[in-house]
Amino acid sequence: MDGKGRFLLVAAIGLVVGVVLGVVIGYFSRQAGSAPWAEELVRDGDDSVGRRVQEEILPENIEANLRRLTSVPHIAGRPMDLGQAEELRDRWLQYGLDSARLTPYDILLSYPSSDDNSPSRVTLMEANGTVVIQSQVEEAPLDEYQTDPNIVPPFNAYSGSGDVEGELVYVNYGRVEDFFHLQRDLNIDPAGKICIARYGSIFRGDKAEKAEQFGCLGLIIYSDPADYSARGYPVYPDGWMLPPSGVQRGTLMIAQGDPLTPFYPANEYAYRLSEEEAKVVSGLPTIPVHPIGFGVGIELLRYLGGNEAPAEWRGDLNITYRTGPGFQHPHTGRRVRLQVNVQNEVKRTYNVIGIIEGSVEPDRYVIMGNHRDAWVFGSVDPSSGSAVQEEVARAFGKLKQEGWRPRRSLVFASWGAEEYGLIGSTEWVEEYSKVLSERAVAYLNIDIAALGNFTFRSIASPAMFQSVFDATKKVPDPAVNPAGSSYNSVYDSWAAKLPKDAGNPNSVPTIGQLGSGSDYTPFFQHLGISSIDIRFICDPAVISYYALYHSSYETFDLVKKFIDPEFKVHQAVGRVLAEMALDLADSLVLPIDPTAYSTALQDIAASVRTEYSTQFAEQGISLDHLNSAVDNFTSAAQRLKRRMADIDRKNPLAVRVVNDQLMQLERGFIDPLGLPGREWYRHVVYAPSAHNSYAGQAFPGLADAMFDIENAVNQTARWEEVKKQLAITTYTVQSAATAIEEGGL
Amino acid sequence: MDGKGRFLLVAAIGLVVGVVLGVVIGYFSRQAGSAPWAEELVRDGDDSVGRRVQEEILPENIEANLRRLTSVPHIAGRPMDLGQAEELRDRWLQYGLDSARLTPYDILLSYPSSDDNSPSRVTLMEANGTVVIQSQVEEAPLDEYQTDPNIVPPFNAYSGSGDVEGELVYVNYGRVEDFFHLQRDLNIDPAGKICIARYGSIFRGDKAEKAEQFGCLGLIIYSDPADYSARGYPVYPDGWMLPPSGVQRGTLMIAQGDPLTPFYPANEYAYRLSEEEAKVVSGLPTIPVHPIGFGVGIELLRYLGGNEAPAEWRGDLNITYRTGPGFQHPHTGRRVRLQVNVQNEVKRTYNVIGIIEGSVEPDRYVIMGNHRDAWVFGSVDPSSGSAVQEEVARAFGKLKQEGWRPRRSLVFASWGAEEYGLIGSTEWVEEYSKVLSERAVAYLNIDIAALGNFTFRSIASPAMFQSVFDATKKVPDPAVNPAGSSYNSVYDSWAAKLPKDAGNPNSVPTIGQLGSGSDYTPFFQHLGISSIDIRFICDPAVISYYALYHSSYETFDLVKKFIDPEFKVHQAVGRVLAEMALDLADSLVLPIDPTAYSTALQDIAASVRTEYSTQFAEQGISLDHLNSAVDNFTSAAQRLKRRMADIDRKNPLAVRVVNDQLMQLERGFIDPLGLPGREWYRHVVYAPSAHNSYAGQAFPGLADAMFDIENAVNQTARWEEVKKQLAITTYTVQSAATAIEEGGL
Repeated sequence: MDGKGRFLLVAAIGLVVGVVLGVVIGYFSRQAGSAPWAEELVRDGDDSVGRRVQEEILPENIEANLRRLTSVPHIAGRPMDLGQAEELRDRWLQYGLDSARLTPYDILLSYPSSDDNSPSRVTLMEANGTVVIQSQVEEAPLDEYQTDPNIVPPFNAYSGSGDVEGELVYVNYGRVEDFFHLQRDLNIDPAGKICIARYGSIFRGDKAEKAEQFGCLGLIIYSDPADYSARGYPVYPDGWMLPPSGVQRGTLMIAQGDPLTPFYPANEYAYRLSEEEAKVVSGLPTIPVHPIGFGVGIELLRYLGGNEAPAEWRGDLNITYRTGPGFQHPHTGRRVRLQVNVQNEVKRTYNVIGIIEGSVEPDRYVIMGNHRDAWVFGSVDPSSGSAVQEEVARAFGKLKQEGWRPRRSLVFASWGAEEYGLIGSTEWVEEYSKVLSERAVAYLNIDIAALGNFTFRSIASPAMFQSVFDATKKVPDPAVNPAGSSYNSVYDSWAAKLPKDAGNPNSVPTIGQLGSGSDYTPFFQHLGISSIDIRFICDPAVISYYALYHSSYETFDLVKKFIDPEFKVHQAVGRVLAEMALDLADSLVLPIDPTAYSTALQDIAASVRTEYSTQFAEQGISLDHLNSAVDNFTSAAQRLKRRMADIDRKNPLAVRVVNDQLMQLERGFIDPLGLPGREWYRHVVYAPSAHNSYAGQAFPGLADAMFDIENAVNQTARWEEVKKQLAITTYTVQSAATAIEEGGL
Repeated sequence: MDGKGRFLLVAAIGLVVGVVLGVVIGYFSRQAGSAPWAEELVRDGDDSVGRRVQEEILPENIEANLRRLTSVPHIAGRPMDLGQAEELRDRWLQYGLDSARLTPYDILLSYPSSDDNSPSRVTLMEANGTVVIQSQVEEAPLDEYQTDPNIVPPFNAYSGSGDVEGELVYVNYGRVEDFFHLQRDLNIDPAGKICIARYGSIFRGDKAEKAEQFGCLGLIIYSDPADYSARGYPVYPDGWMLPPSGVQRGTLMIAQGDPLTPFYPANEYAYRLSEEEAKVVSGLPTIPVHPIGFGVGIELLRYLGGNEAPAEWRGDLNITYRTGPGFQHPHTGRRVRLQVNVQNEVKRTYNVIGIIEGSVEPDRYVIMGNHRDAWVFGSVDPSSGSAVQEEVARAFGKLKQEGWRPRRSLVFASWGAEEYGLIGSTEWVEEYSKVLSERAVAYLNIDIAALGNFTFRSIASPAMFQSVFDATKKVPDPAVNPAGSSYNSVYDSWAAKLPKDAGNPNSVPTIGQLGSGSDYTPFFQHLGISSIDIRFICDPAVISYYALYHSSYETFDLVKKFIDPEFKVHQAVGRVLAEMALDLADSLVLPIDPTAYSTALQDIAASVRTEYSTQFAEQGISLDHLNSAVDNFTSAAQRLKRRMADIDRKNPLAVRVVNDQLMQLERGFIDPLGLPGREWYRHVVYAPSAHNSYAGQAFPGLADAMFDIENAVNQTARWEEVKKQLAITTYTVQSAATAIEEGGL
């Protein structure tokens, strides 16, 4: 090789090395320079954020929150409604949320009359008018909290007012089947009588509605120890069971939202019904209804006449339960007087809405809601949840201040006037129905965070199953006693204690259907936004619900002494909420398993077949089309799930297309015409039961049409209604199937 | 420099050159290799595609299409319904559409009785029963087409059947104001009489409804030359004016869609009302109604008694128009007999749905619809539109075969049974309501493509204004005569002939409000999908509509000889349709100007103030909240428009967020509860007038409540209804404003 040749060789080597280097430089410089958004748009969520947010949620903060919130009674529409709302807004802003604001609504609320001379009460009298026993206006001062002048006396909101006197009839839980049993089997007509029902089993508003439908003059509702105490457990203040003077307050409204402005927000220019119209349209009782404790209840029931009550009607008072009417010898002359003096007033309530905006899809909302109002101190309902929600908001605010932002927006909502009938949330949902329908990914509700420390439990749309399973697997099971938990995760403990398939050690946990009873209702039942409600509960083997519910004994001490002294259960609930919100807000592909929904639909269709096929066959009604629609939904769900797996995860629009369909899956079940007779409820797959608002009813249109059809006056008309509802249900399921198809049309 | 130095220098130079080269190579290789979707996802539409598609739309093809389509009568529910649907599906597939399929519905249709012995007819008799004149069952055989055995005789679909006899009363157009004038000012009660109305001014179904409401025994509708002829112009077959025997067929149904399945698709498992229920629910007349030509009409009216009709009631028959009732001397004994024999039957109709899938956003649909069914040959209504739509489909199919694809999906729809009440489109919209609400960008309707050659005209949602202006500017004005057009573009001619602001030479063209009357109704009024209807019209100075409308003389010859001999007008309409579709399907940011909507709302609010403010002031009703809501919408629209301009056009998700809001802008005006008394109509800003379905009524809830309020029986209740509708209108406008806000909540 000569000099020239070597020159060329060196130059060539230099060139080659240079090109290689240059290509590398050029290639990677391009990556950073040309499309800065590209990586960000298709970045998936990161588990480390979840760990960080869990770390940030601290029990001592939750305890401090709860102590502050329960320091005063905070019923809706009274000064603390605004006061606590403003404080919360300020704290959220301070925590680093991008925005926080109040949304006021002027709504019809209900309070005991301010006239001290005519309190609501129940009086048992001898024939000559001598008082045997009379209910107290206030609960007994068993603790230091009871002296607070702002405690509202026990009452049932929206009760009719009146002063009635008559014979007493015991109607068990006041369920429709109880009234049927009374009328049809026992030949006792409650019409013209004062009825006494025990609390429990169903929503109290349904008791009042049935009592009115069956002609009762008035209704007394008492808490029986069978439902609100457990033998061998001490009563408050020595334990968490209900003392004789404890009374459950509560609303009687079955409809949701402001009774004067159904379907529309109760803003300044809203058209308002008159109170008389509202009674009809929103289903408020006209008869007087009043709650009492079992200290008075036992005296009313002790000498009741009539036959002995059926076995399943008997509570745990140490008496012989009888149905009435009237009293037994030598007390036959006794009468009961029920005086109720309740005032309805238009008052202002406030929601607080706080937002951390999403970095990539700010127009997608993951909403975490909790109500703020309580009947009295509300240490469990709802302030346990409020305390947790606030800590979750603080934790996310902290992360944001550290530089993190979720992909989608996180929305925190503190609702007013839930106790009266989900009013704050309903008015807000009605005001923002368009935006929410178009943009909301999910609604996560936390009402009571912990009414016990036994296990996590959830009621949810099937669209939320995957997300709550994933979240609970990531959260350690809280150790209530020093020995610690024997379960690794909330999920493990939940699956063991509430298995879906009791015999199977690998069973998933059971998740109940959403009925009504908390603020997920307007989101889920009215708009079709996938929703979930989470909490910790007590051991159902001990008691089915917490005994001090809606009494003035629901104090900070109850939680601190008897439920969660170290607030670790509360912490766990907050962590589950945060992990779910994070999963839904940060995952590239939404963590929604469409086949969970098709499985649920298949189960419902199977039970429809089991329950109705004989009667349907007699009427020549076929379930074939319904079965096909459910099968079509199932195939569509499987195809969508495959698309979720096969999608080009580098293409942000392809991901958004799939996510849009996942988000809108639940909307597919909404019929804008609503359910017959209760058109505000528009979810065709799940509704509150028409006979118990707390419970979920699957395929409610069909179930309502079939209810007690054997005794329908016009059989032909009722069967026509069944056929119509079957067609609507079939159409809606098919329509939902179509809406998650890639092609669609 | 030594040898080593020179080596190093050479190596260094080589290296530098190499690096430079390499960087360039690396940089650009990265572009192609790393994110193949990135450029595609944010590519904007390209004008060259529009030029190419315009080039491809050929008048000779449209002519051939029209000749083929009009070769036989093709009424809905008869064999040609399926036959033409199958042929169209096959041709669409052959043109290169990705898919094309039939969607069948079983619906209640209506035909003249098949019993030849009892035809529908009108008879004028002397007192002794001698026939003076009797309407013919068929139109006169003025051309070679009239021998076709499949021509359906003139009738009004869904008329009641019956045989009534009585005195005759002339009710002008049969509008509510005509009946009011008759009753209140002229003291003539039409109850118990046979009424005769002239066609025109309002939808014939409204004439029938009013006649029934005012107690008429039956209704005869005739076509007066004042409305269906122009003096000095020859009648068919020598010209395009209506001959004496020509009769306008047409439906009487005011509701939309299958009368037996309101709100739900008429599929195999649908729940069907009985015909009796349907008459009430879907508003079908029970009285007999029958259409006649003016050849018979003049004889009925010639000797009518009573006073001379008001000036504006007089038509162009060479007689003195009188109101009746009864006949004048010496014909006082004459009576009119109306026999109507119409049968309703459940029959199957078919839509054809063809799709070209979008490459980037296949889940966004731009829908182009036209109905296929005609009362007889339908050369104008609708086959002029069908011929154009098919050519547009072929043109887009051709482009696709050449390798092009739209960003969003193009959907072609050929509707069945439009003439009966938009049935095919309505059933389809009801079946796919979820998918359409979530994914449809716009619906472009072409019913009649050209009923004349004078000018382009459009009725549309304000959301479509920008797109139709842009499209018409790109399409050359068609030259009907050899001298060519004196306008450059369709837009220029349109703006000159139908200016919005008559005095202003730079005025934009006027665009009317959408009422009902064609297949945009279910999309726009029921779902809130932005819609437009386009066509060419005749010179309104000559005649307001084409004279042979719905007669059997609406033949191929009519179009070829008198409207558009070279099919250049049809070509222009096709090009406008194609350019609009392309604009909506291919533009990166949707060509929707939200401020066009706010301007329209401001205009409507201003006319509400003008019209009602005195009465409202008397009632203490304030328009302040409505004005605020409109102002809020205006600000929101301006902000959205700014975001459209400022958006990062390289970020496909940021673009999609804005596009989603533009797409959903119109949905914001939908109230799921619908308008009072006609709940299927859910658009709060625009509805068909309650008194003339053809016309659009702005703020219909308010307008209906205010209608004739001076004469309302219960004034208080009516003013309550006004207040309620004002609140609902205000809320809905505010809600729509919120839904286009970036933040939303």
